[in-house]
Parts: sequence; C-alpha cells; structure tokens
Amino acid sequence: MNGIPDSHADILDKAGLAYLATAGPKGEPQVSPVWFGWDGRYLRVSHTPDRQKYRNVRRDPRVALAFNDPDDLYRHIEIRGRVERIDPDPDHAFINAMAKKYTGVDVYEAAPPSQERVILVIAPEHANTMG
Amino acid sequence: MNGIPDSHADILDKAGLAYLATAGPKGEPQVSPVWFGWDGRYLRVSHTPDRQKYRNVRRDPRVALAFNDPDDLYRHIEIRGRVERIDPDPDHAFINAMAKKYTGVDVYEAAPPSQERVILVIAPEHANTMG
Repeated sequence: MNGIPDSHADILDKAGLAYLATAGPKGEPQVSPVWFGWDGRYLRVSHTPDRQKYRNVRRDPRVALAFNDPDDLYRHIEIRGRVERIDPDPDHAFINAMAKKYTGVDVYEAAPPSQERVILVIAPEHANTMG
Repeated sequence: MNGIPDSHADILDKAGLAYLATAGPKGEPQVSPVWFGWDGRYLRVSHTPDRQKYRNVRRDPRVALAFNDPDDLYRHIEIRGRVERIDPDPDHAFINAMAKKYTGVDVYEAAPPSQERVILVIAPEHANTMG
C-alpha cells in the first residue's frame, strides 16, 4: 500500500513532467517542472545542491507533485509527501536514467561529469485525483 | 512593467494548463492544474468557494504558478505572486470564457448555473524562466 489509487497509478509509469511544489524561505509556495522516477514506493527527482529548491526541501521536506496523464491532460493526480532522504548520485546513474526515460539518450549532456548531483527521495503520503 | 520577461511572455498567451501551488492549512505545499486567463496585468483562475485551494488562498494569498509552452515543454515560466482580490463570477462569464479558451465551447457545462463561482485575481511579483 503506497497510497496511490489504482485508478491513476498508470500516470506515474508514463514519461510526463511532474510539477514539484516546495515551501520557500518565507513559507511561500514555489513550483517548477521536473523529471521524475517512480519505483512503486518512492518518487525520485534529480537535483543539484546549489539550487533554491534543494535548499527549500532541506529546510522543509514537505512537497507536493502534480502529474497529468500525457495522453489525457484532464486525468490528473496530485501527490503530497515528504523528502525522506537525499541520496548522492556520484556517477550520474540516476540523472542519466532520467535523460534516457525522457529523451532517449544514454548520458545527460547538460550535466558535466564533475557536477555534483543529488536525488530527492520522496515518500508519498496522500493523493488526490481528478478525471 | 508587469515583471514578465519578454522572452517568455508568449507562453501566457497560449492555452496551456497552469500548475497552481498554494500553502495548505499547516503551510504544506499543494499543487494542481488550472485553466488561467491573462490580461497583461493579472492572472485569473476560476474557483468554487467550497474547495481546499480557495480556503488556502483566503488564509495565505501567496501563490506560485508554473506554465510550460504547450508547443515546447522545455520552455517554462514560473510566476510567484499573490491573490490580490477574489471577484464574484455571478453569471459565469469568466468560467465560460475559460471553457471557450480551452475547449471551444460557449458554456462550461460542468458548472450548473446555480453554482457559486469566484475568480482568483493574481498579481505577479516575480518570474523565473527556463529554456
């Protein structure tokens, strides 16, 4: 039981973008599109440790993600949860897997090999669906 | 000057969905897709007054919206701002205009004529772009 309704679980197996909302320094909402991975238990999002969103989730691990079915924009699932841990991605295995999923390439060229990357590991706690 | 960079202003003139992030009762982020209107000064989003998101913005007017170019998902703009006021929509003129913009119909059939609807009038304060 991961809290994801069976009716909409298929959306998480597709390669649509997710819209990740976090709480900013003053508690204000922030939101931006991300690539995501899903293993049936955790959502994973690649990040660099020098960006605002990373600082946000270090401060407040509560997040929400909106997903639309790329084949039907009026089927939707929102998942709220928290960043349970932040894993390293020293050899870029995860960001490269995301580049493969979304663009079909083996290596995410936009990230130089020397770039530090991390993985936000998000545990779903609640879901809302539409359509 | 509305704070929207010229390079990405065109995205707001298209009929893509926006992803509206608000702060929930305990300050936790929430996010869901919405239809939006844009007049060069205000973003407008239709709502019913019995829903969570409405209660959220009454409590905390700070919001963020993510927009992708429907013609290029890797062009993106995030707008942060606040709900400056909440207007009534007694004759459904606004929700019907949104249904026209997004689906081409004259009347938004999903809203019975008796349904109370309101308009979240959002003033942009800050924008981030990508792509």
